[in-house]
Amino acid sequence: MHAIVIEDKGLSWAEVPDPEAGAGEVVVDVTASAVNRADVLQRQGFYPPPPGAPEFPGLECSGVISALGPGVTGHHVGERVCALLAGGGYAERVAVPVGQLLPVPAGLSLVEAAALPEVACTVWSNVVDRDRLRPGETLLVHGGGSGIGTFAVQLGVALGASVLVTARADKHERLRALGAALTVDYQNHDFVRAVLDHTGGRGADVVLDIIGAKYLARNVEVLAPEGRITVIGMQGGRSAELDLGQLMAKRGRVSSTSLRARPAADKARIVAGVRDQVWPLVAAGLVKPVINSTFPLAEAARAHELMESGDHFGKILLQR
Amino acid sequence: MHAIVIEDKGLSWAEVPDPEAGAGEVVVDVTASAVNRADVLQRQGFYPPPPGAPEFPGLECSGVISALGPGVTGHHVGERVCALLAGGGYAERVAVPVGQLLPVPAGLSLVEAAALPEVACTVWSNVVDRDRLRPGETLLVHGGGSGIGTFAVQLGVALGASVLVTARADKHERLRALGAALTVDYQNHDFVRAVLDHTGGRGADVVLDIIGAKYLARNVEVLAPEGRITVIGMQGGRSAELDLGQLMAKRGRVSSTSLRARPAADKARIVAGVRDQVWPLVAAGLVKPVINSTFPLAEAARAHELMESGDHFGKILLQR
Repeated sequence: MHAIVIEDKGLSWAEVPDPEAGAGEVVVDVTASAVNRADVLQRQGFYPPPPGAPEFPGLECSGVISALGPGVTGHHVGERVCALLAGGGYAERVAVPVGQLLPVPAGLSLVEAAALPEVACTVWSNVVDRDRLRPGETLLVHGGGSGIGTFAVQLGVALGASVLVTARADKHERLRALGAALTVDYQNHDFVRAVLDHTGGRGADVVLDIIGAKYLARNVEVLAPEGRITVIGMQGGRSAELDLGQLMAKRGRVSSTSLRARPAADKARIVAGVRDQVWPLVAAGLVKPVINSTFPLAEAARAHELMESGDHFGKILLQR
Repeated sequence: MHAIVIEDKGLSWAEVPDPEAGAGEVVVDVTASAVNRADVLQRQGFYPPPPGAPEFPGLECSGVISALGPGVTGHHVGERVCALLAGGGYAERVAVPVGQLLPVPAGLSLVEAAALPEVACTVWSNVVDRDRLRPGETLLVHGGGSGIGTFAVQLGVALGASVLVTARADKHERLRALGAALTVDYQNHDFVRAVLDHTGGRGADVVLDIIGAKYLARNVEVLAPEGRITVIGMQGGRSAELDLGQLMAKRGRVSSTSLRARPAADKARIVAGVRDQVWPLVAAGLVKPVINSTFPLAEAARAHELMESGDHFGKILLQR
């Protein structure tokens, strides 16, 4: 088969060995994959695949099952699926543990389905499973225009939360159309002040953050009583001063998580949660994939350039 | 009545106005109270009572109900109780919201019961309610010889956890008698190395910490995957560097909480949890009050000197 391989921090389309379905796995013939920031970091050498994961980038895909490994029941060759991957989505075929397979949500094309697994699992596992966002609470999403951001806005609104976002000004109108109650231009305004003003001084109950160190003190400052911060990206550095006294006054908590390194059983539990709690919202049209553009899989390098520019809104897909 | 009043960072026994039972409150004639580190901080001027709380120190007491406020049902004059207080326990009488009353656990004297409310509510609300300690997990308790520490060891063991503690060496034998699986002399040994050695490199699932800034980096270092740190005291400072990358690798979380500042409804929920889940363990003899010594209430100043020395093991009581 062909796959996108990383060479000298660049991407090229090359012939590679076919994957085989191990015990409890299926092989998926890839129809589409999508770009995540982790792929860019992996290309740059900052984020090596975890042990046992495929060496090619790609944390999600959609496609058709073409082979079943030993012990697999409940799936069949020819089945249309999408999947959460530990890597290997930028390829013609990929082996997937069955616990990471998801059905194609009702109403979506097979290509569109590739836009959902990674963002749905990331946002659900943090905002719902870990941070227990409740109806009526306020969710603050940093990087609202990203794949994660556009999904988190819709999921938060569908769950009855008030969702506030930081994003570049040119993305605000589209974020309000997705349901964001407040859009903050972080380049020209202080998000702490904007969020406190909007919430009558109370702050955000849950903060989903992709910035890390640079925002830590301000995330604590903007937190409501019993608030939860979860850091899932560190575009602004990894180490920063934490004022435990301020955290105590709010009885707040700071978490940091990643999805890719989780054990398989944990991923299967998250995928099951997404199927049960998120897929019905997608089928009902309350949460939609937001797709900025689609590139041919062999031209993944151009898709990475677009992600690095920060000009995209929502997901960048790769199609065979 | 008489109460201990704070003057020039000292304590004296003085005549003061009697409290009255407001709506939903009872007046308790105090039999015993107990010393908490927060009382010492309050005496030193660092920890003013929250709005509406009595001005006298004392976060817990036992005694007999002597008056019922408007709207109180389910309680009667002459009833023996113990109670979680927002202040005012160092006095002959104190007004208490009924949601903060607890029965005297079976098998304990009325004086002994004064040793439990604050530590039981603090430890349960963090280790059980917030951090969800599970059987088979490892709990690391810093300051094992304190009132909080001696209670946390017993509760952790009763819940099926392996409990590791840091404490001065002269307290280790008594901590092992309470069930601690490992005692670390923090003055002469590195607790990170000792805990990692003891757990085969896995670390602690839950860390209950009274030190704060000075231990933050090491608490993250000693954390197991999915581990939870809760900071309830800051004897080692309030602000420190947090390595979010290390926290992410463990999918860990850092909380900080205090009990005194919580809203009344939240305190009532915690007190109910303690009554339902902890009092049966006390009645069964699995968790016992650990009482270092008892001073006359009027001599609270001497009791504070003992707490500040750090020589005590368990609770210091004040008896009328």
